[in-house]
Amino acid sequence: MRAEIHPIGHIETPYKKLEDCPRNINPSGPACALVLDPPYDSALFGLNPGDRIMVLYWFDSVDRERLMQPRRGEGPVLGTFALRSPHRPNPIAVAVVEIETIDGNRVSVPGLDCLDGTPLLDIKPAAKAEKELR
Amino acid sequence: MRAEIHPIGHIETPYKKLEDCPRNINPSGPACALVLDPPYDSALFGLNPGDRIMVLYWFDSVDRERLMQPRRGEGPVLGTFALRSPHRPNPIAVAVVEIETIDGNRVSVPGLDCLDGTPLLDIKPAAKAEKELR
Repeated sequence: MRAEIHPIGHIETPYKKLEDCPRNINPSGPACALVLDPPYDSALFGLNPGDRIMVLYWFDSVDRERLMQPRRGEGPVLGTFALRSPHRPNPIAVAVVEIETIDGNRVSVPGLDCLDGTPLLDIKPAAKAEKELR
Repeated sequence: MRAEIHPIGHIETPYKKLEDCPRNINPSGPACALVLDPPYDSALFGLNPGDRIMVLYWFDSVDRERLMQPRRGEGPVLGTFALRSPHRPNPIAVAVVEIETIDGNRVSVPGLDCLDGTPLLDIKPAAKAEKELR
């Protein structure tokens, strides 16, 4: 199977360098934005401020061959699937956050953990039972 | 940006046809298995039965151009990002399940919702606070 990712837009965050990115989603973190490219912005219809959404995005420029690695760069060496490291065969990140505002093609959400300009892959409504995760 | 998905294996479920697939993850559903292709099976090191994992997989053969659609095929027409329909620009499914057993390259988990043979994209440890989701 070959399947290609089609980014639907990008994410705006305050982080220009990897070493500035926080390790985790922070519901009281700084303002970030999901910026949808047309025509994907039309697919936001039905989402509203206060809704909890699951956001999928793509960690670019990582090592997709890394199968074993130390936890947080200094802990025990484990298999990549036992870790949340961005260095993984398919570097897809998952975050659950609450929508603050929607303004046209811009969805404001708090406290994402990724670089400014990160490719955005998907937005889904989060189930009621979901808690914070990335 | 162009990015290609590299499946790490496939998922075994009892479902051979789309109309047989349940709509949701069911923690007490039938046995399913994540089957890793080598060398990706080595990256399971550190996962154990009882661990909660987030599983990412790829809904093949869907309509990636669908931006508006009725909820569950019969409800109000909403934007795709306000729905969990498999028909979406990047048809990546997310489930959180508990590992039952690990036997070599096979990870048994209960109650997934996808077709037998579905491409497997990623496994991550689920945060403690996470509840059922798909």
